[in-house]
Amino acid sequence: MNANVRGFTVWLTGLPGSGKTTLAHTVAEELRKAGVTRMEILDGDVIRTNLSKGLGFSKEDRDSNIQRIAFVCKLLTRNDVVVIAAAVSPYRESREHARKEIGQFVEVFVHCPLEVLIQRDPKGLYKRAMEGSIQNLSGISDPYEEPVSPEIVVETAQETIAQSTGRILAGLKQMGFI
Amino acid sequence: MNANVRGFTVWLTGLPGSGKTTLAHTVAEELRKAGVTRMEILDGDVIRTNLSKGLGFSKEDRDSNIQRIAFVCKLLTRNDVVVIAAAVSPYRESREHARKEIGQFVEVFVHCPLEVLIQRDPKGLYKRAMEGSIQNLSGISDPYEEPVSPEIVVETAQETIAQSTGRILAGLKQMGFI
Repeated sequence: MNANVRGFTVWLTGLPGSGKTTLAHTVAEELRKAGVTRMEILDGDVIRTNLSKGLGFSKEDRDSNIQRIAFVCKLLTRNDVVVIAAAVSPYRESREHARKEIGQFVEVFVHCPLEVLIQRDPKGLYKRAMEGSIQNLSGISDPYEEPVSPEIVVETAQETIAQSTGRILAGLKQMGFI
Repeated sequence: MNANVRGFTVWLTGLPGSGKTTLAHTVAEELRKAGVTRMEILDGDVIRTNLSKGLGFSKEDRDSNIQRIAFVCKLLTRNDVVVIAAAVSPYRESREHARKEIGQFVEVFVHCPLEVLIQRDPKGLYKRAMEGSIQNLSGISDPYEEPVSPEIVVETAQETIAQSTGRILAGLKQMGFI
């Protein structure tokens, strides 16, 4: 593996609590160890603060949020920065738009069965969504359209974080990105 | 001049019609000729479409718009991309926030006297603002706070585009950015 000369975006999609942010950081850490120097993590929650304040969780607002993340990914990627984006991004069309915009795009489906997510629920999001005290939670009160043909699928209910991380890196290597 | 190894942001501020976008492109062209390969122009109008749809021209909305541009400049700059931002950015505090966020920051005041801008007015903006048919035009119906100590000042009423471009490049060279 060499220091990066070419940019690409790893796009982690999955339900809230499935492990996207954790994996974004572990994958970044491994890439850094492997010599990648120009890299950014774009976390959905951070982006909502910096680029999308005022946007809510309607389909329209979610689409705007994803379009903004995709725009920033595009700028970074075409300037040879490696980007790891972690965002629920529940709508297939939105992810396809991101793929087209960005070009060098690796979709990673971070999969975890809903019943496991409900059981774990460290932030209490699922509990509150099922009680109706929060709305628009993807998977409960809002749709999540699973990827049809993502480049990589990780199963965070069955794999350790290290295993999922390793599989993402193996995929990137196999595709010639690293 | 060498190919860029270190990122920085050239921030062009000035009234509408003063020549910011034109200079962004001529400066980028010269930097490219000099071997800079990783570079982005962030034009205020383009950013409004991609990151700030829905924002207007109140002080609050202008501040949000500038904060978003600054956030993207920061991500690019810290990954060794050269960024040329062209935005009216009429509020001093907003520009100071951008400076702090970005770090490697060169403020260029693109100055042209208001009477010259009103005379030229290729888009008819000043005419319409003075008639009252558009509101919130910086310099007419909205404030423009001139920079107090910008790194570079260009006088687009007196200089040719080539002269202003050359002065910006000379400034960047003198400051050790290129």
